[in-house]
Amino acid sequence: MAKLNFYFDPLSEPCRSVQLFLEANKIPYETKHTDLITAATRTEEYRKISPTQTVPAIVHGEFKLFESVAILQYLAGAFSTPDHWYPSEAKKRARINEYLHWHHLNSRWKGGLLVVMKYIYLPHFYKQEVSEEDKKGSIIALKQTLDTFENYFLKDNRFIAGDEISIADLMAVGELIAPDIIGVYVGKGRPRVQAWHQNIKAALGAVYDSVHAAMYKHMDDIKGLVPPIDY
Amino acid sequence: MAKLNFYFDPLSEPCRSVQLFLEANKIPYETKHTDLITAATRTEEYRKISPTQTVPAIVHGEFKLFESVAILQYLAGAFSTPDHWYPSEAKKRARINEYLHWHHLNSRWKGGLLVVMKYIYLPHFYKQEVSEEDKKGSIIALKQTLDTFENYFLKDNRFIAGDEISIADLMAVGELIAPDIIGVYVGKGRPRVQAWHQNIKAALGAVYDSVHAAMYKHMDDIKGLVPPIDY
Ligand SMILES: N[C@@H](CCC(=O)N[C@@H](CS)C(=O)NCC(=O)O)C(=O)O
Ligand SMILES: N[C@@H](CCC(=O)N[C@@H](CS)C(=O)NCC(=O)O)C(=O)O
Repeated sequence: MAKLNFYFDPLSEPCRSVQLFLEANKIPYETKHTDLITAATRTEEYRKISPTQTVPAIVHGEFKLFESVAILQYLAGAFSTPDHWYPSEAKKRARINEYLHWHHLNSRWKGGLLVVMKYIYLPHFYKQEVSEEDKKGSIIALKQTLDTFENYFLKDNRFIAGDEISIADLMAVGELIAPDIIGVYVGKGRPRVQAWHQNIKAALGAVYDSVHAAMYKHMDDIKGLVPPIDY
Repeated sequence: MAKLNFYFDPLSEPCRSVQLFLEANKIPYETKHTDLITAATRTEEYRKISPTQTVPAIVHGEFKLFESVAILQYLAGAFSTPDHWYPSEAKKRARINEYLHWHHLNSRWKGGLLVVMKYIYLPHFYKQEVSEEDKKGSIIALKQTLDTFENYFLKDNRFIAGDEISIADLMAVGELIAPDIIGVYVGKGRPRVQAWHQNIKAALGAVYDSVHAAMYKHMDDIKGLVPPIDY
């Protein structure tokens, strides 16, 4: 069996999504911790692994791959994981692909990234000024994304693509819980999002907590940096 | 055979990508012109077709789908198009998925959208002021995207995934030629990008021009609105 190396940082949302999959499916892999804060991604050596110098990335035997979703799709095939992760039935798969392509400019950009960047990383870590208007704009964008997520993608389902968990849920949860670190819980006032989050935890069991351990610690570390947000 | 309805506007980049595929594969479809300028996407009726109120969208029989890439993947299966469009071999497919997930925040966001929004749509159509710095930032982002596109995705290939055209090329060309409408040609000083563009035109023949006819007309209409850009 070809060896699988996994380049990741547990504080990266897409990395956690891939790790949830690896752990839930008991796929053997070697972790190559690639630290974002010390810029371990920005070396010439790492560029040979991932040309975009982003995590996650994998090397499976000789085969290199980046982009979290492409990695999940590849792993589902290479390790013949149970069908529900990435169903082979055409319409189910299409619904998952629909979510996964919508994901990047929505759950990730407007969901996981903007709010957290504007309220904490830019002002507190990079010492860049962010206007109140700009901050509020990120909350508005998050809410728009959640409206579509709740009213369309979770409409009549326990999970995005039906009654079973799939790689779409793993990608979504990775991003959507990110604002949690500054006290913005996306399930607030959204019972369907809350129920979905509980369904994911139930489906993943102990794996959910172990993969999020570093994030919980980080939350503790930065507690108090951001004043309570009106969300 | 179930009927295929295609909701599109020929001035939309992802719509053109899907239309190139439909035409190149001679898939029978009915066009549902959904005009962006008159906001035909923003009606309650259209929301029943596409919950995000975006084009493109399809209805195939009873099955509704939005997100251009998900549509292309679905159509490739439903109409059993030649394998090169979306190869079944795992590593080739992974390479295409890698591009297609990288695409949204790169070729589309930094490639097709930002420059065009900042130099023409925001200032000239929506009468919003855009600072010089903001405009130049969009050019820098475009160049970063093109660096990765040229040096990685087109490294030793005629097309993104090898010697034959795939849905990744259709998505990429849709976005990357968009800045053309304001005189920013992404092939400038990039022989590999230029050669790739020629390869796509050669592979698609007359279909390339017919799908782009409305865009060429639009280019003519807006000519002169933007002073020459230092690119
Ligand atoms: N679309 C990519 C996003 C990857 C990405 O942006 N990763 C971030 C961490 S979350 C990164 O590696 N950034 C590099 C850096 O900041 O140096 C994916 O899903 O894999
Ligand atoms: N990621 C989507 C993007 C779709 C999208 O943003 N479409 C634009 C036109 S290019 C749209 O319909 N905008 C709606 C509007 O402006 O009202 C896809 O690839 O299908």
